[in-house]
Amino acid sequence: MNIQRRDLERQLEAIFTAWGMSDEHARITALRLTDADIRGIDSHGVTLMPLYAELRAQGQVNFRPRIRVLRESPVTALVDADHMLGHVPGTFAMELAIGKARQTGLAAVAVKNSNHYGAAGVYGLLAAGEGLIGMSFTSVWHGVIVPTFGREPMFGTNPIAFVAPARKNGVFFFDAATSTVAVGKLKLAKIHGRRLHEGWAMGEDGRPTTDPEAGLAAMRLTPLGGTRAMSSHKGYGLAAMVEILCSMLAGAYYAPTRERRHPEAKHWNIGHFFLAIDPKAFRGEGEFEDDLDDMIDALHAVPPVDPDQPVLVAGDPEKRAMAERTKNGIPVPPSLLAEVRAIAAECGAPWLLGP
Amino acid sequence: MNIQRRDLERQLEAIFTAWGMSDEHARITALRLTDADIRGIDSHGVTLMPLYAELRAQGQVNFRPRIRVLRESPVTALVDADHMLGHVPGTFAMELAIGKARQTGLAAVAVKNSNHYGAAGVYGLLAAGEGLIGMSFTSVWHGVIVPTFGREPMFGTNPIAFVAPARKNGVFFFDAATSTVAVGKLKLAKIHGRRLHEGWAMGEDGRPTTDPEAGLAAMRLTPLGGTRAMSSHKGYGLAAMVEILCSMLAGAYYAPTRERRHPEAKHWNIGHFFLAIDPKAFRGEGEFEDDLDDMIDALHAVPPVDPDQPVLVAGDPEKRAMAERTKNGIPVPPSLLAEVRAIAAECGAPWLLGP
Repeated sequence: MNIQRRDLERQLEAIFTAWGMSDEHARITALRLTDADIRGIDSHGVTLMPLYAELRAQGQVNFRPRIRVLRESPVTALVDADHMLGHVPGTFAMELAIGKARQTGLAAVAVKNSNHYGAAGVYGLLAAGEGLIGMSFTSVWHGVIVPTFGREPMFGTNPIAFVAPARKNGVFFFDAATSTVAVGKLKLAKIHGRRLHEGWAMGEDGRPTTDPEAGLAAMRLTPLGGTRAMSSHKGYGLAAMVEILCSMLAGAYYAPTRERRHPEAKHWNIGHFFLAIDPKAFRGEGEFEDDLDDMIDALHAVPPVDPDQPVLVAGDPEKRAMAERTKNGIPVPPSLLAEVRAIAAECGAPWLLGP
Repeated sequence: MNIQRRDLERQLEAIFTAWGMSDEHARITALRLTDADIRGIDSHGVTLMPLYAELRAQGQVNFRPRIRVLRESPVTALVDADHMLGHVPGTFAMELAIGKARQTGLAAVAVKNSNHYGAAGVYGLLAAGEGLIGMSFTSVWHGVIVPTFGREPMFGTNPIAFVAPARKNGVFFFDAATSTVAVGKLKLAKIHGRRLHEGWAMGEDGRPTTDPEAGLAAMRLTPLGGTRAMSSHKGYGLAAMVEILCSMLAGAYYAPTRERRHPEAKHWNIGHFFLAIDPKAFRGEGEFEDDLDDMIDALHAVPPVDPDQPVLVAGDPEKRAMAERTKNGIPVPPSLLAEVRAIAAECGAPWLLGP
């Protein structure tokens, strides 16, 4: 079933309102999720609703938060998300960074006491929409990435997003977990009866496994690189960098030591970090955008190994999906739609997406 | 032959002075190189002298530069390196960022018209030495990284360095090229008669090669990830991010389009980008450092797959090398020492390292 973005937004808003969010907060949360859906980032849109329902059931989410600035300077801020889902505090924080960077050229805002915030890249898009470079990082409340040489997961998928405005090519849109692959790839391999690529995941013993069942049971992903020979220590270092910006700098909890260091804590308290940079602090009007277009054009013109698979630039798949889905709607598999419908029924939200 | 750091510094200073650098510039350049040597980063210390002699012979370097600030705000600056080797303008830029960040909490400085600046991480160390997080990025004057699906190299090794101050654990020190491996790994495989790991490098046809001769001849490295199945598009995106910060934002030249867009240019004009963040803008005194120590301790305590290979944290190898080399000196292979001696002789610099 294909659903127009606006219809999906209205349905999600209805659920969030039934969960207790204000109209404004429901609107923003639905916007950030459908920002992902409309761009084909299917792992980080409406697909997340069952996870959010679960976090709600666990009492992890405060749907009537007092989101506030705890510390602030003309170029920095620390925001308390008050245990809301991360989309509203994330949007608040990135917009704060954008406002500051428009004044000063550069700003960074960290968020603590937050939850899952959806796709990292959609916050970068807010900055790029104002002509700025936007970066977005988040930590996670449980580990899945195993450090090189180790057996236990010590980092979430800890994504890095970097979005920059070009002129004719739209935005350069990079948004990637620092694991080699997402958990979703293991699930797909299981569904299709395929083996995992060696280097995607490990078993409980910390050794590579190609069995999707064993990989999903152990839930131990490799850092980008996959194996030591392929430089997994680089992906590991990047995952740690994201953790430092989101947990240590924001004052959020580091998942592996949370229970020991904060035994009294009722909530996960994960952190985000946002950076906004105004190209006009460094370049003349339009120069950055033109030079970025030149790079993107040069990359598109690289001779491909396979003539049927041209070289892509970060953001190309999202642009193609957005054009197609704006026209034809967002495809939502029947099983997911049934889950969302059950979530709506459970909280008494109206069902707006037809029979 | 093992050489004490101070002796190696004096020798390099003598050569740089003979090349025409001021005493101060010679001192800083020798410091940044030996910052790498003392930490065991052998690829980015005195080993670079033959490259720098070659850049000098090509007329790429202006040894009497007028390094100056072209644009400036309380939190940003753009620096013109005036075609000097990158160490002095890099140090100037990072120190400018540090000074601003101490006032404001955050600062970014970009550099244009620069050259090779040695190890990216040594600039991050300058920030960490002042209690700040330091990030350092650079572009390169020729491509070696091939974008996913493509056949031609479009990015330099485009490193990302991130250095953060802990308390008892010293610094978290991450410094990595966005290629899967460095060119040096191909050279080592050739010397030792080993095959390359599949996914390190490609032949001229853009297909993976395990032959070190073919890999070195083609000079086409993969982005971190190595192959599409192992998410090389993530390493490719990170390499592009570094290029955007160092070339497009700084106003340096993008190597693949330099000849077409700047046919008159006499110099490479590469760029660097530095970021300094003061943890005290976000956390109370010492909180960031203590939380970082907690993460580093937790990582060291992870059960290893192989009991003989404990889990390392970024910066561990450099700390170990520094302790050892501070005591026993920096090992310089005879062949490299002979090259440096020939460089000294060629420019009339005194030889200070014995017979």
